[in-house]
Amino acid sequence: MKIDAPRQYVVDNLKYALNPSSIAVVGASRYDMKVGYKVIEGLKKWGYKGKIYPVNPRAEFVHGLKAYKTIIDIPDEIDLVFVAVPAHLVKMILEHAVEKKVKMIVIATSAFKEIGRGELQNNLTQYCRDNKLPLIGPNLVGMGSPYLNFNCGFIPYLPIRGSVAMISQSGANLLAALGTSQMDHFGMSFFVGLGNKADVDFCEFISYAQQDDNTKCISVYIEGLDSPDAFVKACTQAQGKKPVVTIKVGGSQIGVKAAFAHTASENEGTDDAFYDEIFERAGAIRATTWQEFLDISLALGLQPELKDDKVVMITNGGGSGLLSCDHFERRNMPLHELKEISPKLVERIRAYMPMFGSPLNPVDISGTASPLQYKGAFTQAIRDPNVDGILGSICPTSVTDVPAVTDIVIDIYKKYKHLGKPFVMECQGGEECHNAIIKLRDHGIPAYPTAEQAVNAMIALRKYSKIKERYNQ
Amino acid sequence: MKIDAPRQYVVDNLKYALNPSSIAVVGASRYDMKVGYKVIEGLKKWGYKGKIYPVNPRAEFVHGLKAYKTIIDIPDEIDLVFVAVPAHLVKMILEHAVEKKVKMIVIATSAFKEIGRGELQNNLTQYCRDNKLPLIGPNLVGMGSPYLNFNCGFIPYLPIRGSVAMISQSGANLLAALGTSQMDHFGMSFFVGLGNKADVDFCEFISYAQQDDNTKCISVYIEGLDSPDAFVKACTQAQGKKPVVTIKVGGSQIGVKAAFAHTASENEGTDDAFYDEIFERAGAIRATTWQEFLDISLALGLQPELKDDKVVMITNGGGSGLLSCDHFERRNMPLHELKEISPKLVERIRAYMPMFGSPLNPVDISGTASPLQYKGAFTQAIRDPNVDGILGSICPTSVTDVPAVTDIVIDIYKKYKHLGKPFVMECQGGEECHNAIIKLRDHGIPAYPTAEQAVNAMIALRKYSKIKERYNQ
Repeated sequence: MKIDAPRQYVVDNLKYALNPSSIAVVGASRYDMKVGYKVIEGLKKWGYKGKIYPVNPRAEFVHGLKAYKTIIDIPDEIDLVFVAVPAHLVKMILEHAVEKKVKMIVIATSAFKEIGRGELQNNLTQYCRDNKLPLIGPNLVGMGSPYLNFNCGFIPYLPIRGSVAMISQSGANLLAALGTSQMDHFGMSFFVGLGNKADVDFCEFISYAQQDDNTKCISVYIEGLDSPDAFVKACTQAQGKKPVVTIKVGGSQIGVKAAFAHTASENEGTDDAFYDEIFERAGAIRATTWQEFLDISLALGLQPELKDDKVVMITNGGGSGLLSCDHFERRNMPLHELKEISPKLVERIRAYMPMFGSPLNPVDISGTASPLQYKGAFTQAIRDPNVDGILGSICPTSVTDVPAVTDIVIDIYKKYKHLGKPFVMECQGGEECHNAIIKLRDHGIPAYPTAEQAVNAMIALRKYSKIKERYNQ
Repeated sequence: MKIDAPRQYVVDNLKYALNPSSIAVVGASRYDMKVGYKVIEGLKKWGYKGKIYPVNPRAEFVHGLKAYKTIIDIPDEIDLVFVAVPAHLVKMILEHAVEKKVKMIVIATSAFKEIGRGELQNNLTQYCRDNKLPLIGPNLVGMGSPYLNFNCGFIPYLPIRGSVAMISQSGANLLAALGTSQMDHFGMSFFVGLGNKADVDFCEFISYAQQDDNTKCISVYIEGLDSPDAFVKACTQAQGKKPVVTIKVGGSQIGVKAAFAHTASENEGTDDAFYDEIFERAGAIRATTWQEFLDISLALGLQPELKDDKVVMITNGGGSGLLSCDHFERRNMPLHELKEISPKLVERIRAYMPMFGSPLNPVDISGTASPLQYKGAFTQAIRDPNVDGILGSICPTSVTDVPAVTDIVIDIYKKYKHLGKPFVMECQGGEECHNAIIKLRDHGIPAYPTAEQAVNAMIALRKYSKIKERYNQ
C-alpha cells in the first residue's frame, strides 16, 4: 500500500527483522517438508544466536524446542514473529502480535492479493499501520545476513559475506542470487525477500541499508513500485553516499499480468520509460538483465567510482580487447586511444610487450605475456595520473601462467588502492579462469568471465560517479 | 586476400588440417616454453594417432622424436606442415612445402600484416595460391577435434565432444571457448583459429563444416571479412541445412584500429549495419556478446528449429518467469498467453500447481512444485499440438529437489524428442544448479544459468526456422 516517504518507525524497527534477539515462528510444524519446520531448521543450522520460540497449538515440542500455543503465551519479549500459517489465520496472529507488542512481523504465507484477495491484504496492512507494527510480506521466502549467521525463512543457502544488500521482491530470484553468491563469491551484507510488500516497502529497506555499515551497494529487484516518490526519497536522502542498483521486471505486455499473479504487483499503464524516469530521479543505476544486475552490483560494492572516462584496458588477448572496446562504444563510453590519454604511457608500456603487441587501447601485451610483463604494464598504467581506471584481462594461452598473473594483479591492486582508481578484471575460459575470478573477488577485485560483463561493470562505476557529482555541485 | 567463392581445392584439403595422417612441425624447439615445443607436446599429450616429424636444423631429437633439417628430408608423405619459425624464414618453408607436395600449411608465426608487413604477407599468400597449397594463418594458435583427440597448436585444452564447429579469428577467444567447453560442457565438433586468414578464409571452413558429420552448428568469430560474397555463398550453398552463428567485432571507432593491430583485419568504412546486411543475406544468425554467441550456438547445435512462436514457459519461480517474458518481448518475440495457445491446456496444467500458482504463460507452478508436478506440467505442454516449444526453469527453493526434477525433465525430453519441438532449460542459482545444467547439456538439452540466456537460445531457434523457411518456399 502506497506511502509518501520512508516511515521512521519502520526503518528503526528493521533491525529487528535483520538482527532479532528473539523469534517466534508461528505455524512451526513437526513435519520436515513444511515451511514452518524449515524455518526453525534453517535458523539452527546456520547458527542463529538468539532465542527461538515455536508456536503451534497442537505440539509440545518442535525441533527439540518447547512450543507455545500462541505468541502471547511466550514468557519473553519477542522481536520478530515469522508467520507460516494459512491466510485465514493471519488476522488473529496479527492481533496477538499487537497485544504482545512485538517489534516486527514477517508473513511468508501466500494466497493474498496475488490471487485476488486484495481487500483482505489491505485490511491486514491497515491494521498493522494503525498499530505501528511493521509487516514484511506476505508471500515471501525470508531474510538473513551472513555476518550474523542469520538465515530466517525457507532458504537453502546463506551467501558469503560481502558488501551488497540484496532486496528482492521475488523469492526464487533471491535464492538464485544466494546460490550464485556461494559458487561465484558474490558477497552480500544482508538479503531480504519482500513478496507482496503490502506494508514495509523497498524505500524503507533502502533507508536501512544506507545506515548499515556492512553495505556498500544497495541492489533492488522490483516487480512493481507502489510508492515511486517514497523510493526516490529513500535513494536521494543519502545524497549518493551509496550506489543503488535496480532491475525492474513486469514491463512486457504479458509481464504486467505475470507480475500481478506473482506478487500482486501493479504495472498497468507503466512502461520502461516510466521507470527510467523514476530511477533517473532517484539516482539509481538500472540493469536490464539478471546477469548485469549481479555484475554491476558486485563492482559497485567493491570499487570506488570512476571519476572520468580515461580507462586503460590491458589484455594478453586481442580478441577480448576487441569484444571490450566494441561494447564500450555500444554502451556510449568509447575507450580513448592511449596516445590521447597519455603519450608518455605509450612508450613506457611498449617496454612490456613483444614487437607484435599493440599499445593502442585496448593495450594488447600479446598471448606470450609473462607475469613480469603484466606487472610492468599494469604498474605503468595505474601510476599514470591521466589514467582514471584499469580494466585487465587474462586469457589462458598455453604460455600464460594464470595463477601467477592473478597474484601479481592482486599485489598491484593492493599497492595502488590508495589512488582510488577502479580496478576491474576479466578472465575468460575454463576452470583455471574460474579459480582466478574467485581469488580476485576474494581480494576485492570485481572479476568476470566475459569481456562484456567487465565493461558493464566499469560503465556502472562511471554512472555512479556522475550521480555523486550531482550532489557535489 | 579476397576471393570470390569458396575454392574447391581448399575445401577438399581442409581434411588434412583437421584430420592429418602426418604432421611436420617446423621450428620444433627443444625448449619447453617455446611454441614449437608446445605443439608437439600437445599432439602427444592429447593422443594424436598419426605421425609427427619435428623439423629443426640444429637438433637430432625433439621430444623423443627424430628431427629433420628440412621438410624435404622427411622420408614420408606429409599432410600438414605446422610452422612456428620467425617471419623472415617462412618463404623458404613454403618453397620446401611446395617441393614436398604437402597438402596443407599452417603458419602460427606472428608479425606479418598486423604490424605493417602487408606486402610480405600478400606475397606469401600469392605464392601459395599459385601453387595450390592452402595456407591457414598466419598469426594463429592452431586447430583440433575432440573426436580425433587431435590438438595441434599451442592450446592448453581440448573441448568436449559435441556439435558446434568453432571457427575463430582470435586465438585467445578460441582458447576461452575451449576452456568453457570443458567447464560448462559446451560440446564441439572441431575448432580452428584463423588469425590473419591470409589465404584460407572463413567461407572454406564453413563449406567444410557443412559436410562434416559431427557438426550441427557452425559458429564463426569474425574480426574482418575480406570476402563477403564468398562468405554469403558458403552459407547459402547448403540452403540452411545447418545454422551459421556469427559474432563480428572491430566495429567501434577504436575497434577498427585494434582489429587491424590484432589480425590485420580491415574494417574502415564498414559498420554494424554493413555486416547486418551481409549476415542477413547469408542467413547467418548474429550474436552481439560473447556469452550470447556461445549460448545460441549451443542451442542450435543441440535442438531442432522452433517452427512457430507458441512457446510455453514452465517455472517454479515467478521471478524467473518475469525476467523471461520481459526479455522475449524486448527481443521482439513476445510470449502468447496460454489460453490463446490452447484453452484446454490451461485446465490440464492447473492440475499440477497449487491455488497460488498461475497458468498464464510463463506458467508458474510455484516454489512448492514437486518432481511429479513438474512431470505433469511438462508432459501436458509438450504433448499439446498447439505448443511449438518448451522453455523450462528450475529454481532452487528449499523444497525443490533439483536433481530429481532434472532427471524427470531429461526423461520427458527423451520420450517426446520425436515430436521435434525445441526444449530449452534454465536453472539459476549455485552449485546444484550448475550440476543440473551440466547433466541437462550432457543429455542434449541446452540449459543456462539465467533466464535471459535461455530466452536468447529459444529466439535463435526461431530465427533459424525462418531462415530454413526461405529455402523451402
